[in-house]
Amino acid sequence: MSKTIDFYFDFSSPYGYLASTRIDALAAEYGRSVHWRPILLGVVFKAAGNQPLIEIPLKGAYSWHDLARTARFNGITYRRPSRFPLPTQTAARAMLWIQEQHGHALAIRFAQAVYAAMFVEDIDISATPQVLRIAATLGLDQAALAAALETPEIKDRLRAEVAQAIERGVFGAPFIFADDEAFWGFDRFPQLAAYLKNGSI
Amino acid sequence: MSKTIDFYFDFSSPYGYLASTRIDALAAEYGRSVHWRPILLGVVFKAAGNQPLIEIPLKGAYSWHDLARTARFNGITYRRPSRFPLPTQTAARAMLWIQEQHGHALAIRFAQAVYAAMFVEDIDISATPQVLRIAATLGLDQAALAAALETPEIKDRLRAEVAQAIERGVFGAPFIFADDEAFWGFDRFPQLAAYLKNGSI
Repeated sequence: MSKTIDFYFDFSSPYGYLASTRIDALAAEYGRSVHWRPILLGVVFKAAGNQPLIEIPLKGAYSWHDLARTARFNGITYRRPSRFPLPTQTAARAMLWIQEQHGHALAIRFAQAVYAAMFVEDIDISATPQVLRIAATLGLDQAALAAALETPEIKDRLRAEVAQAIERGVFGAPFIFADDEAFWGFDRFPQLAAYLKNGSI
Repeated sequence: MSKTIDFYFDFSSPYGYLASTRIDALAAEYGRSVHWRPILLGVVFKAAGNQPLIEIPLKGAYSWHDLARTARFNGITYRRPSRFPLPTQTAARAMLWIQEQHGHALAIRFAQAVYAAMFVEDIDISATPQVLRIAATLGLDQAALAAALETPEIKDRLRAEVAQAIERGVFGAPFIFADDEAFWGFDRFPQLAAYLKNGSI
């Protein structure tokens, strides 16, 4: 049984953001670490035949209301972004590069900063300069990251991550695997906690 | 502020079934009663541009797993029906007739029996004889119900209920309004409880 939980998310997924504020603490409570795995929901939705919820008119209006309410209910700082959804491949590639070059801990701090930029500070995280600026606040070399973002290697790396997620059954975000048990959505955290506690559910 | 909570459901909705086992007790805890309102999800989905989750391949497989897990997690008896989904207009019309002729309390008992038939006993509740049989177990007059099911009035009544639900913003099931606050899904019961307790959320 792997101690690591796989946390699949997209930087533009609001429920992914809510989950991101809690996943590490929840895992740590049960002696687990978390592998943060950025994916591209647009590609995943296309493969799964799914629809972005915001594009379904009634469901979209409700979802914005539900997001603000769910954030309040859980005591999570949240502001509805004025630009939504946003392309997230630059942020995702940057995170993969940071993981490879500087390890998981710093990559998670980067991801948290990107999510806060999108869902608290209302910053356009699809813009490469913003991604580089966030990296710089963590002490990372902007020029090295900017160069890495242009390489075919990092693009292939993200493509492979997304393909592997789809292969594994991911059809939305946040999507979590604890061992082989799959949990979709922030509202499954109570069940995830029960699974981590008992080793079964 | 109305004391009555509106509970919209479809007799073929598994998460609606889970919600149906808890909604009355939850409402009663906060001095509320529940108006059980059967709708037809097929019509609602068409109007909302939504998709039945079971029809989305990966999401469908996950959902069956999640349903059994969510039932276990909440201590609710559940068996995956061998026939799914089922047309539910006969059961819905019967419930509306029982509400009108015999009041809400008996109609709720009927609805609970229909849900148990579908999600515990694996009975084909789309079959009129099964609907009549369930009504008979509650002491209702099968012949009178059978005659009522054939009238244009009861068909119009259900059509109007579904149209009014769509008008109000219902796009899935279970869907609950407490005053003007909308809650979609069994997993929003903790937030519904908080709203009922505090009068705001």
